[in-house]
Amino acid sequence: MAAVAVATRWWLLLVLSAAELGVARALQPPNILLLLMDDMGWGDLGVYGEPSRETPNLDRMAVEGMLFPNFYTANPLCSPSRAALLTGRLPIRSGFYTTNGHARNAYTPQEIVGGIPDSELLLPALLKGAGYASKIVGKWHLGHRPQFHPLKHGFDEWFGSPNCHFGPYDNKARPNIPVYRDQEMVGRFYEEFPINLKTGEANLTQIYLQEALEFIQRQQAAHRPFFLYWAVDATHAPIYASKPFLGTSQRGRYGDAIRELDDSVGRILRLLRDLSIAENTFVFFTSDNGAALISAPRQGGSNGPFLCGKQTTFEGGMREPAIAWWPGHIPAGQVSHQLGSIMDLFTTSLSLAGLEPPRDRAIDGLDLLPAMLQGRLTDRPIFYYRGNTLMAVTLGQYKAHFWTWTNSWEEFKQGIDFCPGQNVSGVTTHSQEEHTKLPLIFHLGRDPGERFPLSVASIEYLDALRRITPVVQQHQEALVPGQPQLNVCNRAVMVSGLYVDCGGSPGLRVC
Amino acid sequence: MAAVAVATRWWLLLVLSAAELGVARALQPPNILLLLMDDMGWGDLGVYGEPSRETPNLDRMAVEGMLFPNFYTANPLCSPSRAALLTGRLPIRSGFYTTNGHARNAYTPQEIVGGIPDSELLLPALLKGAGYASKIVGKWHLGHRPQFHPLKHGFDEWFGSPNCHFGPYDNKARPNIPVYRDQEMVGRFYEEFPINLKTGEANLTQIYLQEALEFIQRQQAAHRPFFLYWAVDATHAPIYASKPFLGTSQRGRYGDAIRELDDSVGRILRLLRDLSIAENTFVFFTSDNGAALISAPRQGGSNGPFLCGKQTTFEGGMREPAIAWWPGHIPAGQVSHQLGSIMDLFTTSLSLAGLEPPRDRAIDGLDLLPAMLQGRLTDRPIFYYRGNTLMAVTLGQYKAHFWTWTNSWEEFKQGIDFCPGQNVSGVTTHSQEEHTKLPLIFHLGRDPGERFPLSVASIEYLDALRRITPVVQQHQEALVPGQPQLNVCNRAVMVSGLYVDCGGSPGLRVC
Repeated sequence: MAAVAVATRWWLLLVLSAAELGVARALQPPNILLLLMDDMGWGDLGVYGEPSRETPNLDRMAVEGMLFPNFYTANPLCSPSRAALLTGRLPIRSGFYTTNGHARNAYTPQEIVGGIPDSELLLPALLKGAGYASKIVGKWHLGHRPQFHPLKHGFDEWFGSPNCHFGPYDNKARPNIPVYRDQEMVGRFYEEFPINLKTGEANLTQIYLQEALEFIQRQQAAHRPFFLYWAVDATHAPIYASKPFLGTSQRGRYGDAIRELDDSVGRILRLLRDLSIAENTFVFFTSDNGAALISAPRQGGSNGPFLCGKQTTFEGGMREPAIAWWPGHIPAGQVSHQLGSIMDLFTTSLSLAGLEPPRDRAIDGLDLLPAMLQGRLTDRPIFYYRGNTLMAVTLGQYKAHFWTWTNSWEEFKQGIDFCPGQNVSGVTTHSQEEHTKLPLIFHLGRDPGERFPLSVASIEYLDALRRITPVVQQHQEALVPGQPQLNVCNRAVMVSGLYVDCGGSPGLRVC
Repeated sequence: MAAVAVATRWWLLLVLSAAELGVARALQPPNILLLLMDDMGWGDLGVYGEPSRETPNLDRMAVEGMLFPNFYTANPLCSPSRAALLTGRLPIRSGFYTTNGHARNAYTPQEIVGGIPDSELLLPALLKGAGYASKIVGKWHLGHRPQFHPLKHGFDEWFGSPNCHFGPYDNKARPNIPVYRDQEMVGRFYEEFPINLKTGEANLTQIYLQEALEFIQRQQAAHRPFFLYWAVDATHAPIYASKPFLGTSQRGRYGDAIRELDDSVGRILRLLRDLSIAENTFVFFTSDNGAALISAPRQGGSNGPFLCGKQTTFEGGMREPAIAWWPGHIPAGQVSHQLGSIMDLFTTSLSLAGLEPPRDRAIDGLDLLPAMLQGRLTDRPIFYYRGNTLMAVTLGQYKAHFWTWTNSWEEFKQGIDFCPGQNVSGVTTHSQEEHTKLPLIFHLGRDPGERFPLSVASIEYLDALRRITPVVQQHQEALVPGQPQLNVCNRAVMVSGLYVDCGGSPGLRVC
């Protein structure tokens, strides 16, 4: 796999000349640290306006780094968005979607036989080509079967779980979700790794933190560049925090979890400074999808001024908090209005490592280094998919919805609400509404909350449509969908049909 | 009036000892500069999470000063909130309300004969007792008749208008709104002070800025402490900006106005630094009520994650952006979770001047200096009124609604919507719903958007109610309402009945 990676970066040139001087260590490509939160919303950080402002470490990270207010995930659900991060490709290309229903979201429940195909090239595998040691801490979510194990897809180390921390289960028909150290299962949630659903107490974030700190120290001691993918999940229901943080937030248990994650990020960044590798470590903080408003307020966060949340292709479902930090390289205290994507972390990481993205396949990620180092903006579309349905696209300030849907009336009437307290007539629809001929278009600068569609008779609408149409056409004509891996409603690809409700839209307890 | 003010502050003690050393200038009490925006929402500043982040000067002001995320106006409409600021009293005490309808908001339309009563003691009049020169720049809004003129109520200077910049009118039955310099009318909006409704171009913010800069320079040259009340209105519909700012925002014309105001604040703070009086000038930035969502997105702003807007007693109607700045005194980069009120600016300003608030009347304002200088928090309620109806109260993290109402069905069906895109069942009601026996209670930390009322059967609800009930009882028992000044539906107190629609709730074009 490493064969497709071609070294191109400046530091490699430095190697050639400076190697003679014996300055080996300074010539390493930068370490790469991706901090991926789970279900954390755009509005959950102080720097993004959360009124309780309980994220001093993340807010400081933004002051020392660069904030991206217009940064998106690739899917409003966890598995596909994680596949997108690690492949640099839309889930529809990598197969991380379902064809079981129109505009259906899907993930990897414990019973599914699908997972990340061998044909996909994952970031850690490619980074090996530049000598990186890699570790994933936390939630993998790209498949449970042996062939999908992270160590089979390029990671050198893993501490964490293939799935969410749902449970406890009966351990007969349905065992509790396992926790792995590398190849070995070392226990299960609710057993060796307890989570108290009543009090919310669990030590997992502290364990994940120690795993991160230890890995960083070990790689630094070995003078090896590292890629650490810290995929923690305390803000995914059931919300948890360790004892010192429980009850400390103004926002209840969800805020306790946020405070512990914020504290952990602070400790990780402090270690980088203490080890004097901050200037050689690129850190990026973001989340896998919008806050799960179905679980709010006790088990779900905030999407700030945006519409709806997780599961939807409104801004609340897909716009994410995002902070880049690389002291001495990324100028401090800057805001970039680059339209960014979680898939850009793939391409940007390769770029940092002096590698080029694979040329034998479509890559959707953009190299963000020009935006981060030179303040350059690149015009590019953001595509919003549910399953294999292109729901919407954003180009510049304009977002066009080709389909609108929150969830089914049936589900909504049961109290499952992806947009509690919000209701935009003709927009937050409970039936799947097609607008492909005359999309609903919003100006996200004036109307980030997607409340006021442009009049289809306006010149502004026509101009926006004229710009968007060819971009979408080109995208759709070139698109080659991958083999769908997440056909959860097809019993043939499921170990058992337990919990997967295929009658309506996705069920409540999804990762 | 100055007789009621008693000097108490430390700097007066310094005067006694240091006067002998001839250090006269350093002994002045601090200058006081209140920057009051019009209809600007909590969510309109970058530091409060506005995605376009176009307020670099205000964001820097927050970094150099103290941010108050829980700061409130005293009324969701302009005239009463301005009366509250200058008197330190709830509008129901000063008479700035109407009894013409239950829960009716009211202001001072051009035809009203009411205004600020002579019996009210206004901040500039009291500050005279400590030698302050005072000026109001911009919108007065406390009455149009000669007896209500700001110079009759303690201000030494005025440049601005008694009312909003509505118009243009026909200048026969209805003249355009006048603009004053001190006692003299110097022109009218749309005539000597043009506003181009089509392009949005008006030079008013630049004129108001020059008035501020000139006043500051003049007082500094005269070594006189000053009180400047900069009450600008570019963010009140019709939105305007001067030519260099038009078309420069990502947010359209509203954003252009914000950018010009932000730039102006930056220039004012820079002047204070350049004159070396920053450390002797207390500056406070806030707004008179929530963003006017009825005019959004082109003529109205953002209330961030909060519910509804101007005219309502939900958080979007009354929670305001607020930044305190006083280099060398207020520690930089702090956030205070003190529940603050626009009325506190009255008491705090007196405190800064070494004066005590009047003792012959109820004062609702709190001295914020302990919060700002020592980080101390004071437990105090925030009352939310519409007219003479106590709609809600916040105590600690809990907000109890005794009445819920947005506007009438009749008005709503005409398209007048105070909560566009928002709809919380049983909360954003279009009929006036009484909850005095069992108030709707929200936890504002977990649920700042007021979407999830606590279950009345929960222990948390009962505990909150037990704390709130005596506070409200005490408030209501002690309350002596003032003579209502804003009975806009009573033709006897109106010069003419034009434009005041008394059939339903307040009309669209209100200040």
